[in-house]
Amino acid sequence: MTVTTPRGFRAAGVAAGLKASGALDLALVVNDGPEHHAAGVFTRNKVKAAPVLWSQQVLTTGTLTAVVLNSGGANACTGPEGFQVAHATAEKAAELLDCGAIDVAVCSTGLIGKQLPREVVLAGVEKASAALDTSGDAALAAATAIMTTDTVAKQAVHVDPAGWSVGGLTKGAGMIAPSMATMLSVVTTDAVVDPDSLEEVLRAAVRVSFDRLDVDGSMSTNDTVLLLASGASGVRADAQALTAAVTAVCRDLARQMQADAEGVTKRIVVRVTGARTEDEAVVVARTVARDSLVKTALFGSDGNWGRVAAAVGYSDAHVDPDRIDITINGVRLCTGGVAAGGRTDADLSGPDIVVDIALGLGDGAGEILTTDLSHAYVEENSAYPS
Amino acid sequence: MTVTTPRGFRAAGVAAGLKASGALDLALVVNDGPEHHAAGVFTRNKVKAAPVLWSQQVLTTGTLTAVVLNSGGANACTGPEGFQVAHATAEKAAELLDCGAIDVAVCSTGLIGKQLPREVVLAGVEKASAALDTSGDAALAAATAIMTTDTVAKQAVHVDPAGWSVGGLTKGAGMIAPSMATMLSVVTTDAVVDPDSLEEVLRAAVRVSFDRLDVDGSMSTNDTVLLLASGASGVRADAQALTAAVTAVCRDLARQMQADAEGVTKRIVVRVTGARTEDEAVVVARTVARDSLVKTALFGSDGNWGRVAAAVGYSDAHVDPDRIDITINGVRLCTGGVAAGGRTDADLSGPDIVVDIALGLGDGAGEILTTDLSHAYVEENSAYPS
Repeated sequence: MTVTTPRGFRAAGVAAGLKASGALDLALVVNDGPEHHAAGVFTRNKVKAAPVLWSQQVLTTGTLTAVVLNSGGANACTGPEGFQVAHATAEKAAELLDCGAIDVAVCSTGLIGKQLPREVVLAGVEKASAALDTSGDAALAAATAIMTTDTVAKQAVHVDPAGWSVGGLTKGAGMIAPSMATMLSVVTTDAVVDPDSLEEVLRAAVRVSFDRLDVDGSMSTNDTVLLLASGASGVRADAQALTAAVTAVCRDLARQMQADAEGVTKRIVVRVTGARTEDEAVVVARTVARDSLVKTALFGSDGNWGRVAAAVGYSDAHVDPDRIDITINGVRLCTGGVAAGGRTDADLSGPDIVVDIALGLGDGAGEILTTDLSHAYVEENSAYPS
Repeated sequence: MTVTTPRGFRAAGVAAGLKASGALDLALVVNDGPEHHAAGVFTRNKVKAAPVLWSQQVLTTGTLTAVVLNSGGANACTGPEGFQVAHATAEKAAELLDCGAIDVAVCSTGLIGKQLPREVVLAGVEKASAALDTSGDAALAAATAIMTTDTVAKQAVHVDPAGWSVGGLTKGAGMIAPSMATMLSVVTTDAVVDPDSLEEVLRAAVRVSFDRLDVDGSMSTNDTVLLLASGASGVRADAQALTAAVTAVCRDLARQMQADAEGVTKRIVVRVTGARTEDEAVVVARTVARDSLVKTALFGSDGNWGRVAAAVGYSDAHVDPDRIDITINGVRLCTGGVAAGGRTDADLSGPDIVVDIALGLGDGAGEILTTDLSHAYVEENSAYPS
């Protein structure tokens, strides 16, 4: 199960007609309470989609009753008309759910620069509202309806022995990049929570999950992660336990995004230790993870540690070139900045590659999940308009 | 002609045996004077190749008699042994040319992490010394001997009506990235120059030529641009005229590198106007030029301006999303951040694409030369070890 595993939530996914294929393309997630606390993290892109501008605005109250999500169009670079469509979408859901438009967030994904057909969206909201259900099938339909180049629906759940749970759904396969929410995701919990700490809980979880996934370095206009808390379990969760659970669910979802990234043939973890600080470790890991020459080498199952060393060297972190150790899939290839073995000593033929970089300067550690740069990535992104 | 067009210079390119193919792989450029002023710009990568460390050291005197350049190995991540090979290379050339090792710069390119075979290099220097010549053929051999994945030798020349000239050779097809010299290049002039201004002349030229070329965002460990002045024309060039001429030669060389970049199928210019400052214009242009989704779209001849807008939005420069105009190959596709035409209105079927981005905020303007992200780039870099 997923977003409907926590009590107090219903979901639906329907075919509104936004995708020419007739596939599911509009989802609705509703929090039936008794509480309606919510927090959100949004893209830091200065070009923000209309639904991001709308949802940031409504989230200032700290409460949400529902989220409408659609694929088949990002509603980004659509001006005042696009904002009106996002607003009308929220109003339509509010009317059907007997709440205010200010209680409804909107998320969109798909091609940038295309207006969404208002009547199609509004009819879709009505259809979704009629399909709302607490079942796993309904949650799966919602997770499916937000897919773009994703090939599988992505859901995760954490059931706490104390009697509450956290569920999540997400989408995202390309335009996935550093330092922000990086896709659309809705995470639900039935724990009774301290509303004042909810945003902090979400930020802490996102920082070490979605923010540590970097497929192609491209920051989207639409990235949104929402956390909704219904309190329906009647069991209070302290901020620490809730943070751990939300982090576990977000990490699970991020790993699913990595595994289903555009054109992926290798799931790569770049782990950095021995940096002066955690931030510097992440900077080094991200620089290596984004380097096209590293990504193409790993696509070719080539343990080209020299390209890794070059990327470490041009990162914005402090490094000592004579202390860099590089280990790939458990085989040390570089010690103290110099070759420690043949480039072919490490077996990279499988789908999982771990690049360990030890900087020898301090205790800072951090990792980034990424993917290789493959022919399939080029094919998908030169042919698919997103 | 090229580096031997200015009087006072000889060049050679020979097959030393560093490349298994038996192709030319070692070049020598000699300044016979009467003056020996020189300036250099080097990679800002913290992991610097041994020849970069050597050449930075010898350049502190502001004079050079010769430059030894080799392909077939970068001599990077090679530790003390690698530095000794670079040093021995300079000593060998000094012995043959009757100068000091401190008068000889060394440049290397090829695979990172592999030791260069010292005796092979030294024998190559001897062979090159015997082949030194002022002819165009000799200069072409030198330009050819430094090629790696380059498919053509790259040379340029500027003849000043006042009676002096500037010539240059360069190599570079991948691992070409922002904010530094970006490859190996030797530029010669027979103008009589003010030695104190020579480094400033070179930095000014590089800033708007090689530094504005970004193929794959990967900063090399070996990038070096050297400017040698022989004074052999007997004609004094003021700093302004010399800067203009060196800039023209460097721009010509940078355009040749763009046209021969790894896997290139499109030569792309990203031009930004209306930024608050020139620096911010370049930041925006570079962010767009490095975006994998923009590069794959243009490979597919797809005028996907939404991806351009998204990249503008996540750049580190100040932008107003409602003022962004985007024009591709002369067709306005986005006005004020909103669609102004169909994505298919611009004809991108040819090899040249110009992306014009107007920010509407000020007078800052700048451009970056880049290339598309093609199947051939992926193929070349997943199969070729560099």
